[in-house]
Amino acid sequence: MSSFTTLWPSLSGIGRDGGTGGYRRYAWTPADLTLREWFTDCARQRGMDVEEDRNGNLWAWWSPPGWSGDPRGAFVTGSHLDSVPDGGAFDGPLGVVSGFAAVDVARQRGVVPSVPVAVVAFSDEEGARFGVACAGSRLSAGTLEPERALALRDNDGVTLAEALTRQGRDPHALGADPTLADRVGVFVELHVEQGRALDELDRPLAIGTAIWPHGRWRFSFAGQANHAGTTQLADRRDPMLAFASAVRAARTGAELHEAVATFGRVRVEPNGTNAIPSHVHAWLDARAATEPALEALVEGLASDAQRFAAEEGATVEVSSESRTPVVEFGQEPRRRLRRILGEVPELPTAAGHDAGVLSALVPTAMLFVRNPTGISHSPAEHAEEADCEHGARALAEVLIDWVTR
Amino acid sequence: MSSFTTLWPSLSGIGRDGGTGGYRRYAWTPADLTLREWFTDCARQRGMDVEEDRNGNLWAWWSPPGWSGDPRGAFVTGSHLDSVPDGGAFDGPLGVVSGFAAVDVARQRGVVPSVPVAVVAFSDEEGARFGVACAGSRLSAGTLEPERALALRDNDGVTLAEALTRQGRDPHALGADPTLADRVGVFVELHVEQGRALDELDRPLAIGTAIWPHGRWRFSFAGQANHAGTTQLADRRDPMLAFASAVRAARTGAELHEAVATFGRVRVEPNGTNAIPSHVHAWLDARAATEPALEALVEGLASDAQRFAAEEGATVEVSSESRTPVVEFGQEPRRRLRRILGEVPELPTAAGHDAGVLSALVPTAMLFVRNPTGISHSPAEHAEEADCEHGARALAEVLIDWVTR
Repeated sequence: MSSFTTLWPSLSGIGRDGGTGGYRRYAWTPADLTLREWFTDCARQRGMDVEEDRNGNLWAWWSPPGWSGDPRGAFVTGSHLDSVPDGGAFDGPLGVVSGFAAVDVARQRGVVPSVPVAVVAFSDEEGARFGVACAGSRLSAGTLEPERALALRDNDGVTLAEALTRQGRDPHALGADPTLADRVGVFVELHVEQGRALDELDRPLAIGTAIWPHGRWRFSFAGQANHAGTTQLADRRDPMLAFASAVRAARTGAELHEAVATFGRVRVEPNGTNAIPSHVHAWLDARAATEPALEALVEGLASDAQRFAAEEGATVEVSSESRTPVVEFGQEPRRRLRRILGEVPELPTAAGHDAGVLSALVPTAMLFVRNPTGISHSPAEHAEEADCEHGARALAEVLIDWVTR
Repeated sequence: MSSFTTLWPSLSGIGRDGGTGGYRRYAWTPADLTLREWFTDCARQRGMDVEEDRNGNLWAWWSPPGWSGDPRGAFVTGSHLDSVPDGGAFDGPLGVVSGFAAVDVARQRGVVPSVPVAVVAFSDEEGARFGVACAGSRLSAGTLEPERALALRDNDGVTLAEALTRQGRDPHALGADPTLADRVGVFVELHVEQGRALDELDRPLAIGTAIWPHGRWRFSFAGQANHAGTTQLADRRDPMLAFASAVRAARTGAELHEAVATFGRVRVEPNGTNAIPSHVHAWLDARAATEPALEALVEGLASDAQRFAAEEGATVEVSSESRTPVVEFGQEPRRRLRRILGEVPELPTAAGHDAGVLSALVPTAMLFVRNPTGISHSPAEHAEEADCEHGARALAEVLIDWVTR
């Protein structure tokens, strides 16, 4: 048993909703600050130096003896601590806890690293509060402009700039981290699997091969608010009908392109029982195995939505809120993981990850831990303790191999 | 020109949203309290006694000279002051302002009433905050149980009992008003039309004949929250797809039964862009010309929804939140209105009104004022000043005839 099993329960109460049993760990909320304290405590207990970088990402450093100056060529592992609304316990935190556990295994074996080691917790990976996923890693990688990030608003109208200021952070500090490419020799992110492939293969662990291209699009249907009782059908301009047709068309399009497409977030105005809506705003999450398939899916749906809206005397505006191209994890790190871990399944994923963002700048790799139901982004998300232990020990083997070369 | 034209603008700023231009006058909010002060001021300026009854309905009394004791056989007019979310200026307030203007006309003519006269503003007619329409009149008429009303919750989880207590009202006072049948000789409610019939007839005023049977039903679709990216289509239990099919089926059913059916209010859980929903709660507003047509529409849709849910591996629960049977306004008051007003169009309406609630207890009648676009429950709701003046003067003729018999 590694230190994983003792570390894991220390996170379980933070940001958990008593009603749903799910986690509500949103960026720069009290729950997020408590998670940051938890991270800092874990690092201090191990004598690791904690750094919060300009974008709020947390780094816990274990430096080689006599190392001076900035870290270079480090072995970095970790993931994120924030959650989607009513998310599960594993998505994100499993990678951070496994990172600390891997450090513990290496030290118990008397490993003396030849390069710096870091456990990292990237800020606001889910984008649950401000709408842009992987905000912390994107800012550091230079693929999210600080001006755009600072102007993002949560559902209460609070901007990221205001949220940072309230928590004593300097919003002007945000921006690309020019040291990133030098300081990170490799980033290995361990994550709970978000599908049932490992369960079907009856295996506890996989190496990641690629991340599907994916994105978020906002469909804003506009009609005419009116009385739900007295407005004749022929006089209606009801955007809900056009939205409903788009929901069904998204499923048909996903089947056609062997992709996935989801309308999971909706805002209706004025949202009164006896009022025909004036607006239905709906967010599409779409992902496909290839760029052309994703393009065809989204463009087809946008075109369908225009037609559905026109049929109801309504309109629709489709805007891209985020777009992530396909990521192929590097062959070299994957080859090395295979050498260390032996014959292990290799899988792509349709979920975005900080490792995908960093892959444009530094070598990256991912490890997936079996999820027996495949359920994720839900309080029902689960991984068996034995599989989590297996994952933490595998990560330790990778770490030890990397830092003792 | 009656006092209508000077009174009307004094309401225009209360509870208006600067962004949408619509009104947000919800029960027991600051806007509602300001409207109650406005009503009290109007009454005091006319030397009318103001009474807030046990259910929060406001009555302004003009008693015959020498009248002592409780009012009996009164001529009552008025409507309500609250609004739907982003409602228009006319729905409700037009009837209250016209009531005060009619009192002014009668007094200018030196009328001495033989029975008490009241202008009434019923509380929470729209049900925008707590979900039950005509709550104030239903409580007084005994068709809404106080226990049920007090437990209703707004979107922030505040119960009506808590909202009343916060505003210094006694929640234990709520209940049927046993004096209602005696005190009200007739209730004549003037209201803006909520369709285009008068515009098509090129006439400014109509007498109401009936209110279509109508109701509100909650459709709660339940599936399984999961990751929008990694969950294969075959593994999904997505309630949004079942809801979308129900929206389309509601329109088809409404066409079939020559009725109207609307899903205007939706709540999605967890409502995250990258999460398949666990729940979609949607409220159906449905109305038809006859009881059998309404039953067939709603029962057919509930059955369709069960099938749609089952097809997605989801479930649905359909519950009735309110149900109002057909109302036929009494022949006697309608005959009298025709005698007073001459040849005037007569129209049914699909909108619920306090006059419909009271019709079970006392004689009731309605007057409708032309709405040139038919738009209602929207900031675009409109009536021409000349038509409003015409309506107020017609109401004054009815009042004078009734109280000088």
